[in-house]
Amino acid sequence: MEAYAELERRYAEIRDVKNGLSILGWDQEVMMPAGGAPARAHTLATLTGVAHGKTTDPALRKLVRSLGRKKDLPRRKRRAVELVGHEVEKASAIPADLAQELALAESTGLETWRAARAAKDFRRFAPALRRMVELKREIARLTAGRGRPYDALLDDFEPGATMKQIDPLLGALKDVTVPLLGQVVASRTKVDMSPFVGRFDVAAQAAFARQVALAMGIDPERSRMDLSTHPFCGGIGPDDVRMTGRYDPKDMRGGLFGVIHEAGHGLYEQGLDARRMRSPLGGAVSMAIHESQSRLWENNVARSRPFWKHWLPKLKRAHPRLKGTTLDGVYRAANALAPSMIRVEADELTYNLHIILRYEIERDLVEGRQDVQDLPDRWNTGMEELLGIVPRDDAEGVLQDIHWAMGLFGYFPTYSIGNLYAAQFMEAARKAIRGLDGKIAKGDLGTLREWLRDAIHKHDQLYTPEQLCKRVTGKPLGVDAFARHVRKKVRELY
Amino acid sequence: MEAYAELERRYAEIRDVKNGLSILGWDQEVMMPAGGAPARAHTLATLTGVAHGKTTDPALRKLVRSLGRKKDLPRRKRRAVELVGHEVEKASAIPADLAQELALAESTGLETWRAARAAKDFRRFAPALRRMVELKREIARLTAGRGRPYDALLDDFEPGATMKQIDPLLGALKDVTVPLLGQVVASRTKVDMSPFVGRFDVAAQAAFARQVALAMGIDPERSRMDLSTHPFCGGIGPDDVRMTGRYDPKDMRGGLFGVIHEAGHGLYEQGLDARRMRSPLGGAVSMAIHESQSRLWENNVARSRPFWKHWLPKLKRAHPRLKGTTLDGVYRAANALAPSMIRVEADELTYNLHIILRYEIERDLVEGRQDVQDLPDRWNTGMEELLGIVPRDDAEGVLQDIHWAMGLFGYFPTYSIGNLYAAQFMEAARKAIRGLDGKIAKGDLGTLREWLRDAIHKHDQLYTPEQLCKRVTGKPLGVDAFARHVRKKVRELY
Repeated sequence: MEAYAELERRYAEIRDVKNGLSILGWDQEVMMPAGGAPARAHTLATLTGVAHGKTTDPALRKLVRSLGRKKDLPRRKRRAVELVGHEVEKASAIPADLAQELALAESTGLETWRAARAAKDFRRFAPALRRMVELKREIARLTAGRGRPYDALLDDFEPGATMKQIDPLLGALKDVTVPLLGQVVASRTKVDMSPFVGRFDVAAQAAFARQVALAMGIDPERSRMDLSTHPFCGGIGPDDVRMTGRYDPKDMRGGLFGVIHEAGHGLYEQGLDARRMRSPLGGAVSMAIHESQSRLWENNVARSRPFWKHWLPKLKRAHPRLKGTTLDGVYRAANALAPSMIRVEADELTYNLHIILRYEIERDLVEGRQDVQDLPDRWNTGMEELLGIVPRDDAEGVLQDIHWAMGLFGYFPTYSIGNLYAAQFMEAARKAIRGLDGKIAKGDLGTLREWLRDAIHKHDQLYTPEQLCKRVTGKPLGVDAFARHVRKKVRELY
Repeated sequence: MEAYAELERRYAEIRDVKNGLSILGWDQEVMMPAGGAPARAHTLATLTGVAHGKTTDPALRKLVRSLGRKKDLPRRKRRAVELVGHEVEKASAIPADLAQELALAESTGLETWRAARAAKDFRRFAPALRRMVELKREIARLTAGRGRPYDALLDDFEPGATMKQIDPLLGALKDVTVPLLGQVVASRTKVDMSPFVGRFDVAAQAAFARQVALAMGIDPERSRMDLSTHPFCGGIGPDDVRMTGRYDPKDMRGGLFGVIHEAGHGLYEQGLDARRMRSPLGGAVSMAIHESQSRLWENNVARSRPFWKHWLPKLKRAHPRLKGTTLDGVYRAANALAPSMIRVEADELTYNLHIILRYEIERDLVEGRQDVQDLPDRWNTGMEELLGIVPRDDAEGVLQDIHWAMGLFGYFPTYSIGNLYAAQFMEAARKAIRGLDGKIAKGDLGTLREWLRDAIHKHDQLYTPEQLCKRVTGKPLGVDAFARHVRKKVRELY
């Protein structure tokens, strides 16, 4: 098996370079002084070129092809060859000058988007976005093979996913969500937000969030937790995970649920198999599976009554002004639902409507059914239809997200698919772990974590998302578990 | 000039990779969780290989050779071609498998050294060091051309320096130092260390050190200051400089003079020309010139009376227990001299004796005149001869420094050469800036900084160390300025 060893050796070097890029990207967001930006852009561009060069090396392509013809490869090696082959073929389909033009369009796109958002004026961003859509369509055309263009972009984030699979899923999700939101809006219930909104010491917030993350099982010897404007989980799993958070003295929700969310990502990374970290099988299955792990902890665990049974007394100790808060009160405040303009601030019910809007628009852009210039109209009409509210300006409308400016088409749907996976995995966990809610109510988060590790994390990329879902939950991904989860909450609270 | 543009383009990519390595190295020391070490080692090794591959690319070598034959290149371009050519030839002389074996010997050497130092037993380290010396001799042989082996190693840190130049310089330095140390030891003067030794709030120490660094002219928009066990200045100049410090609650000296030292390095980096940062001319001239910038601020400025005239009142405000401290008291305490075992804790007089000991030993090791097994004897005899004291064990003797374990032969002398440059540059500054001491006494550190920037920093690598020294001071490097500097202090204080 010399050819296979050579494949692993070459792939490990690609992974090394990408790991370097990942730490340098984290540094850029969290540590780099402002002046470092231009030099960093050069370093990232050159190292991206190095990784691309190693990925498209004809010698690697030849190895993949000859190993692909072998019929007697054991299952894991076959899967590894398939994963490398997919990466090599996609990278090789994009000529170097197109890749370079795309990188340029990303940085100018980002700059133009920032200026346009500050000016609340989509027209300033339109030309850059138009060029970006052209480039992404060209790339989609080159990499799609016999598939649809949008599917080729989606595949970068959710390997194997297609519109054919996602359209009905998000359609069903819309059908579940819209009537529930109608119920919420029609309800007279007013949620008392004082358990989370008011005035809360930022250091105490951070200490409490850290305490929860450690109880979830985050290993501090293999991770960091820092501050950043936009919370994220970066680094390189499993032994060097970098999570960030931010704390608002007036509203605890973003800080606390944000850290729990990132710690969910972090647990997935830390649960990956360290021995595979430089091998083709190493790493997370897909963006949606990753998001399922953060959402499960954020929404299915930390917005549950049992969770607060254990943690409310500790929260009260951290913030004495909460001494009169009841379990029911904190549970209601953690689950307040209402239509709002900004995706990243949306609750777990309306969040998916924000995603459906973006998915439908970007799909139509890439498939050539939507003009860039008409985006503000399309956006505002969509917001009114789905959420019953209309943005005052482009900044709180079509310009709110960074994704399209960076060329990230095909990323948005993974957020909602992640929410669906989260609910379905949580139901499977409840079935598998007797008395799970009782354990959570006693502060035992470890039993759930170990189950997730065993069922999902430790397999790295051995299974496709579909295979993993069937293995863990016994059925393909659907909306039923999520529907049960949100219907129960609306019934209880509104 | 297409060939020259192509040379610059290729060199810029090498610099990009090295900049990435530099930030990743800083992260490893300052930020990385403990678990990240194995993955980081792989990433650093692979990226080092990428930089080496790009440096030894035959296409680059061909460019260097054809440009080297051009007689009509303007001076800056000629110097750039010379610098790249030197790097390319040295890198190309070392076969890839030898480079790899060296990298391996460095990491095992480091591990073995740590264990041996903990056990205070040189014999545990001897086999690894013997192998390291063999490898470095082999590398020296391959890269020395017609020169001496040790000179080839020295050249990695101090381009163009040779034993022929350094032997008499360090010999003269020894002749200056040994009698002065005799005077100090014979003196009955007892220095009152209470201005720096006692109990000092660490946060107040850090705030004061930061205040000094900002007054020196460190630009916080283009730098960071963090904590680390071993203070250093890293990052990539001039727009992303990373300095570190550490603070001891019982002794302020290491924290304060350490930060001033690193800020001296940082000012050099920030004074480099940002437009040249990816070009062959960009970067510092040599390790000794770099060290001259840190030592000048640490010893020639911050251990001077005028400096403390301005800063003592501020230090008193930071640490109220110092309210009775006089200018004379703080000046004496900042300049206390005495033989001691550990190089990094030595004063500015005895420091060079520590270096001379190491230089003579490593020179003899590389030149084949010294056996590894006899090192503890050689060390202890040398300490007795030079400093009049003998280590109790190998840990405070021959095992105290990390350099040889990491294969850094030829590095030590740059510390002392840096001290000599510092004194000579400071005399030149005093000549050039009328009333410099008066300015420093009023808190004006900017005039000196701008002079250094203009005389040294902004030229990047346009001049060799020798050329720069002659340009700035009017003569070649010697020991006279340093001798005047330390003789004055000993006369005043002992």
